[in-house]
Amino acid sequence: MDDIEAIKQLKARYFRYLDTKDWDRYRSVFTDDVVIDVTGSSGGVYVGLDAYMDYILGYVSRLRTVHHGHMPEITLISSTRATGVWSMEDRVLLADGREMNGQGHYFETYEKRDGEWRIQEMALTRLRIHAGGESDWQTSSIDRSRTL
Amino acid sequence: MDDIEAIKQLKARYFRYLDTKDWDRYRSVFTDDVVIDVTGSSGGVYVGLDAYMDYILGYVSRLRTVHHGHMPEITLISSTRATGVWSMEDRVLLADGREMNGQGHYFETYEKRDGEWRIQEMALTRLRIHAGGESDWQTSSIDRSRTL
Amino acid sequence: MDDIEAIKQLKARYFRYLDTKDWDRYRSVFTDDVVIDVTGSSGGVYVGLDAYMDYILGYVSRLRTVHHGHMPEITLISSTRATGVWSMEDRVLLADGREMNGQGHYFETYEKRDGEWRIQEMALTRLRIHAGGESDWQTSSIDRSRTL
Repeated sequence: MDDIEAIKQLKARYFRYLDTKDWDRYRSVFTDDVVIDVTGSSGGVYVGLDAYMDYILGYVSRLRTVHHGHMPEITLISSTRATGVWSMEDRVLLADGREMNGQGHYFETYEKRDGEWRIQEMALTRLRIHAGGESDWQTSSIDRSRTL
Repeated sequence: MDDIEAIKQLKARYFRYLDTKDWDRYRSVFTDDVVIDVTGSSGGVYVGLDAYMDYILGYVSRLRTVHHGHMPEITLISSTRATGVWSMEDRVLLADGREMNGQGHYFETYEKRDGEWRIQEMALTRLRIHAGGESDWQTSSIDRSRTL
Repeated sequence: MDDIEAIKQLKARYFRYLDTKDWDRYRSVFTDDVVIDVTGSSGGVYVGLDAYMDYILGYVSRLRTVHHGHMPEITLISSTRATGVWSMEDRVLLADGREMNGQGHYFETYEKRDGEWRIQEMALTRLRIHAGGESDWQTSSIDRSRTL
């Protein structure tokens, strides 16, 4: 399997472990020093895997979710470093019983360590979030994409 | 085209022939001895292509459908055998006029016979089914994914 | 990166530049003599990139959009020519405040010129369009797919 396909499957496992609440395997897709910005998804900025997993286990793990990633743009920078953009959609059953449906993009970097590709940086931006019958069209995907 | 890409395009044709009601070509993506479990989609377990096509032609063919597959995880086991997991979403116009929207996963095996990859086993599991204004969050995808 | 992956990433940029309103880069994914049929999306048939961009800048640029492409079937015809089918879904915030959600297919050809793959022909067909609380199940995807 080539590196681009390996990174696509890494992100596929990210999504599958997240939605099937397989937290030990979910941890394994990230580097220990991962930096994650999910301010586009009611989260914060987390430096290090332990800080991020505290957020996941303390909040996201109690929600039911579906996440889909689309049209990956993976670019190899070196034999151990790559960047990626993924379009995305998610559905979340919120704690108050409402469902959220959103669309946006992941902007990521990957590192190959000990022979395995892992997510090293991940930022989630948004085009649209729909909840409670109303849509909020956002610009964070537009702003971030233009920096590429 | 490498084997992983060939299997992705096989499944792409599965989806396209299904939604465009192209039944002769739809048959051609399966082995004759395919085993299909669509209990996650108001169907049953079908052993052999003829039994499955009876279900398709007697029920599914009368419905309007959209099926999308996402983030394939294709693993080659040998030069003629592979496994795959696909995340999925579908929309179905039911016989009573309601629309169903669902999300889940396909768990599959593929065999290469006479130089062509075909689907040999296919099971559809679910995370969520929405119909009639209500969502049913299910666990069959969660249960099945954890066996991998 | 092989040609099939390069064409997938070309179409990924098509979608990202469209939804992030990055019009100079959006232009760059097409050949100058592109032929585009978006009658399946409230548009027309446009011969040449200037004619198409007049439509985009005069109408689509004022709307908020999300477009996702799925399950690409890319076929290389020669070292400089390829065909593709993509399943798709879009969400559009219409000028009257309603949201549209649709599904269908892109049927495309690509040409490699000056070392870069570009879209040379693009036709959008539909399975379903939902707006104002009602779904219109269409047949243009069915009709076009059967010609392949």
